[in-house]
Amino acid sequence: MSVTIALAILIAALGTPLSEEKEVEYIPDHSELCYNYGGCEPVMHIAPGTILKSWTEDCFDGSVKSPSDLPSKSRVPFHANPQTGPFYIEGAEPGDTIAVTILGLQPARPYGISSLSDRPDLLSYLALPPADPPASSERVWFYQVNPERGTVTYKAHDGVHSVEIPMKPFLGCIGVAPSAGEVRYSIVPGDFGGNMDTPELGIGATVYLGVNVPGALLSFGDGHLVQGGGEVIGTAVEVAMNVKLRIELIKGRRTPWPLAETDEWIMAIGSTRPLEDAYRIALRELVFWLERDYGFGRLDALQLISQAGENHISQIVDPNYTVVAKIEKKYLPAKR
Amino acid sequence: MSVTIALAILIAALGTPLSEEKEVEYIPDHSELCYNYGGCEPVMHIAPGTILKSWTEDCFDGSVKSPSDLPSKSRVPFHANPQTGPFYIEGAEPGDTIAVTILGLQPARPYGISSLSDRPDLLSYLALPPADPPASSERVWFYQVNPERGTVTYKAHDGVHSVEIPMKPFLGCIGVAPSAGEVRYSIVPGDFGGNMDTPELGIGATVYLGVNVPGALLSFGDGHLVQGGGEVIGTAVEVAMNVKLRIELIKGRRTPWPLAETDEWIMAIGSTRPLEDAYRIALRELVFWLERDYGFGRLDALQLISQAGENHISQIVDPNYTVVAKIEKKYLPAKR
Amino acid sequence: MSVTIALAILIAALGTPLSEEKEVEYIPDHSELCYNYGGCEPVMHIAPGTILKSWTEDCFDGSVKSPSDLPSKSRVPFHANPQTGPFYIEGAEPGDTIAVTILGLQPARPYGISSLSDRPDLLSYLALPPADPPASSERVWFYQVNPERGTVTYKAHDGVHSVEIPMKPFLGCIGVAPSAGEVRYSIVPGDFGGNMDTPELGIGATVYLGVNVPGALLSFGDGHLVQGGGEVIGTAVEVAMNVKLRIELIKGRRTPWPLAETDEWIMAIGSTRPLEDAYRIALRELVFWLERDYGFGRLDALQLISQAGENHISQIVDPNYTVVAKIEKKYLPAKR
Amino acid sequence: MSVTIALAILIAALGTPLSEEKEVEYIPDHSELCYNYGGCEPVMHIAPGTILKSWTEDCFDGSVKSPSDLPSKSRVPFHANPQTGPFYIEGAEPGDTIAVTILGLQPARPYGISSLSDRPDLLSYLALPPADPPASSERVWFYQVNPERGTVTYKAHDGVHSVEIPMKPFLGCIGVAPSAGEVRYSIVPGDFGGNMDTPELGIGATVYLGVNVPGALLSFGDGHLVQGGGEVIGTAVEVAMNVKLRIELIKGRRTPWPLAETDEWIMAIGSTRPLEDAYRIALRELVFWLERDYGFGRLDALQLISQAGENHISQIVDPNYTVVAKIEKKYLPAKR
Repeated sequence: MSVTIALAILIAALGTPLSEEKEVEYIPDHSELCYNYGGCEPVMHIAPGTILKSWTEDCFDGSVKSPSDLPSKSRVPFHANPQTGPFYIEGAEPGDTIAVTILGLQPARPYGISSLSDRPDLLSYLALPPADPPASSERVWFYQVNPERGTVTYKAHDGVHSVEIPMKPFLGCIGVAPSAGEVRYSIVPGDFGGNMDTPELGIGATVYLGVNVPGALLSFGDGHLVQGGGEVIGTAVEVAMNVKLRIELIKGRRTPWPLAETDEWIMAIGSTRPLEDAYRIALRELVFWLERDYGFGRLDALQLISQAGENHISQIVDPNYTVVAKIEKKYLPAKR
Repeated sequence: MSVTIALAILIAALGTPLSEEKEVEYIPDHSELCYNYGGCEPVMHIAPGTILKSWTEDCFDGSVKSPSDLPSKSRVPFHANPQTGPFYIEGAEPGDTIAVTILGLQPARPYGISSLSDRPDLLSYLALPPADPPASSERVWFYQVNPERGTVTYKAHDGVHSVEIPMKPFLGCIGVAPSAGEVRYSIVPGDFGGNMDTPELGIGATVYLGVNVPGALLSFGDGHLVQGGGEVIGTAVEVAMNVKLRIELIKGRRTPWPLAETDEWIMAIGSTRPLEDAYRIALRELVFWLERDYGFGRLDALQLISQAGENHISQIVDPNYTVVAKIEKKYLPAKR
Repeated sequence: MSVTIALAILIAALGTPLSEEKEVEYIPDHSELCYNYGGCEPVMHIAPGTILKSWTEDCFDGSVKSPSDLPSKSRVPFHANPQTGPFYIEGAEPGDTIAVTILGLQPARPYGISSLSDRPDLLSYLALPPADPPASSERVWFYQVNPERGTVTYKAHDGVHSVEIPMKPFLGCIGVAPSAGEVRYSIVPGDFGGNMDTPELGIGATVYLGVNVPGALLSFGDGHLVQGGGEVIGTAVEVAMNVKLRIELIKGRRTPWPLAETDEWIMAIGSTRPLEDAYRIALRELVFWLERDYGFGRLDALQLISQAGENHISQIVDPNYTVVAKIEKKYLPAKR
Repeated sequence: MSVTIALAILIAALGTPLSEEKEVEYIPDHSELCYNYGGCEPVMHIAPGTILKSWTEDCFDGSVKSPSDLPSKSRVPFHANPQTGPFYIEGAEPGDTIAVTILGLQPARPYGISSLSDRPDLLSYLALPPADPPASSERVWFYQVNPERGTVTYKAHDGVHSVEIPMKPFLGCIGVAPSAGEVRYSIVPGDFGGNMDTPELGIGATVYLGVNVPGALLSFGDGHLVQGGGEVIGTAVEVAMNVKLRIELIKGRRTPWPLAETDEWIMAIGSTRPLEDAYRIALRELVFWLERDYGFGRLDALQLISQAGENHISQIVDPNYTVVAKIEKKYLPAKR
């Protein structure tokens, strides 16, 4: 599989699709961006097996152009996390699963941006009392992108400390239309995927999303150049991105909550409140995966995860919290 | 990694103490074990700067000797996680901090043990419905220790799958007497440390614990050969251990919640319910650490942690849940 | 109490509107029912000050006609809690508040229905282990309505126990379109109101809902003849209802979360997860109300609520949990 | 209501014990008070069936004597909620239950006291942002007791509003020694009872507590003249009290979590975090009670509670949160 991915990256770099793969391109105008899951008309129909080259705006809707642009003032209300799409996947029906492999992610601007959210309660919510002097006002950090070294540069507001952090680009948002006719704002993660802010969803990862409506209505956005656990200040290092994805369709397989895999890992992603329920969902779906594809009994699966599995809290700042439960493939038998 | 660990164990075993360090040994009889924090008389007085060589019984109180010994039957009630100690650290007063560096951990038996807890509600608590056929009965897995390869061997109960997992030995329990005159059962983690079940607390780690009573009353136990995130089946790969620790005292420094560091990381450990509060505590204490020792402003600290920090859920099966928030030292300026 | 209710129903039925009040009637066909908040076109425009006479279907979409009709089989998927409406309130704009007074609620059928939800995890979620013999299968209870005594009759499935419970009819659902362009399924409560399942919202209560979209898009449904705290089996005594409401508009007043008042009480209603956050929201909004309308300082308000306020958990079975915080008007000074 | 309470107090004061009942008196010196559950030597042995006349200090350990005495300064650290006791109940063994009936509660001082806790995070914890001007500093409210009217008088700090609130005296704390050899600070509630701050535990109530150690080691304190739901400012109207209790022993009945009953209600009390787990415990134990004593099947019990049961959040400010689930006896068949 690692050879496949390496090839895919190589091919993506060279940009020649495999002979049997169709490649399409969709670069949205700003007016075509969508700010929810489930509420916009499809921008394009895509056949399973197609490679899509596209572009995503940053989470600020492109409104923050300098450190003095505060999102609470520059951004139109309810325009966080603009989505590219939705894309109508041909043949996708409720009860199916789409598999989206992330082939390429490149920053489309020479800087990334992070901000302290305009939520006045964020610090107290995180159990951080106001500092002395008060430190709760909205602010913006710019990160220079250093493409040759694959890093971004952190600079403290007070100018004292600066350090480079390796880029690990990923899509903060990838999702489909929810069930029950719901439309969710693009800051919400859930069983439909969405704003999961999960660093594992970078180049080489394949995301599995259950289909709730005909065509699935896939969309994505919120590119992150790097993000730590919890996304605790409310944003990652945010940037517009050039995106390359392969989209496939698995007929007749239900996927109640998002799953993902890379060459080395399989993982399940739970997004709800409270945090323990997000973890329980992720853990349960990972156990089910070991039962279904790897032949484990329930308790033997749980035992192996208990010793060799890992987890982390992706984010604790969105309307639902996100936890990942995962295990390395080297501990698993061959798929059956 | 297994080579590194094997080397570390070797070095720790051979390791000559620095010339100025006193070394003492304490190997408890079974009757000397303690099953709580705060409720036992000290077994030994120790001067700061001393290296302690000792031994810990496994979490089953040594009662599980074959896979057919079920803990609910073999173990005396309320005798989980027997503690070695407590040790009276000379000069330690409320408001001080003790620093315990883990120099060596060696399995004292040729096998490790994990069990599905005798809590009938564990599976439903983890959102796992009973399998078909029902799968909720208590059971025990034995793991063979392979010292030359630095691994333990997982074997599924149904015999289908077997795989080696690298050992990363650590102490599941390390703590002091709680405040307010409390005595807590040895399965409980809290601000006094205790049953934190945190894999980072292995060889090379230094744990900082705030002192609540004269002498601190340090104890430890619950050796784990390896444990994944969440400790989701209720136990790690449990074993009796030979333990080597260096114990130091930091006068006049308060440590409200346990902190730890290794060569590469600093970390804070929160243990409470719900899980989000455990994370908030760990995050807050990590921010405070960056303020105090590294000269960060509050929001600059939070910003850096948001992009370069990490976290994971250590365990979600004890009376309090434990979350670690951490950051690599390479992203921090020099200590001031 | 039952006499009071019977009288209230009688008065509501007879009740002549004030001379200046317009009265309109809207009785939906089944095909006109709506299953969400925010996603349906308005069925009628209503001027502020109007009395609306209407009708609501039960939470089973009318599909359960005998105790052998199981909702999981009889009801169309995603057709729980059908809504009557939405109604476009003329002049309502984002930033305003609508005030809906419940003038009359009459059961439209001679029986009420409750069911154990078709969620296989409900019992374990409620910490109730399976009974012996297993007791987790879906089932339906029919309650006979005794209009002359103002009661419904509970009958145990096993036939052993039967008892009358006084009716206290209320609307389980009343809400407006959410913000951010969201559409939420009709089983969800939130800051837009919705499926709050709060018994206080009976005859005589006025509900205040913040307006998020032009016209507010008010809808209601899910009539309950009586419901205890928590709605712990997943449903109340459910019935189709004849409904009489007065709808008013308060320009320029924001209402971030639903508020309500009766002759005797003022209350705030929080709906989110976890349960403590639902309570915190309700408590905070009640304190703000005492500050705004009754001249309290923040801590004096909190002190009075701490001694004379009350609360209860309305429900713990919907996608968000609902808590009410309230205080009797007799403890408050005159509105300023 | 106030007349009822006044009468109850009068009757309790006059009340002659049944001829076969032994009556004992224990009035502690301040030096005899205990500040935990499980860690003090018994002050007296009591035979089952005995009536105990006693006295409890207030939660401030008697240190607040005027509104200018701030508890954070006047009270010795870890001396909140002083306990009268513990009492060794003769014949009580682990696996038994003690039943404590509250016969009389009289304020022992002419004023009650409430304070905003010295926890700097309380307001933000309750989702209340700092007011303008800041309002988070510690403060104390004195309530005059009006014995003839059975009320206490609330007075706002700013002097604007004053109102009388009917007294409903109860014991904030009543508990036994915990299991597992634990000692818990007297501010903690749990399965051993303790600081449950539950207003239902007033005159006429019988509290059932499971026995964990020989003699049970019953203690009580923290008298409240009145308290609203949630105890949201951190304290009730606190006062020293004269107390009269009847203590009985039920051999061979386990009571895993505290239960209580009055003439009209039966109830179960859960104390843990998060709040939903506290409610789940209370609900589960109430269902079990209906199964055991009233002959219900599990789902029929849950159905009846769902329609006729009630609940409330007793407190959300202690180390564990407390929820009561209850049902009126008039809805139940005769005990079997």
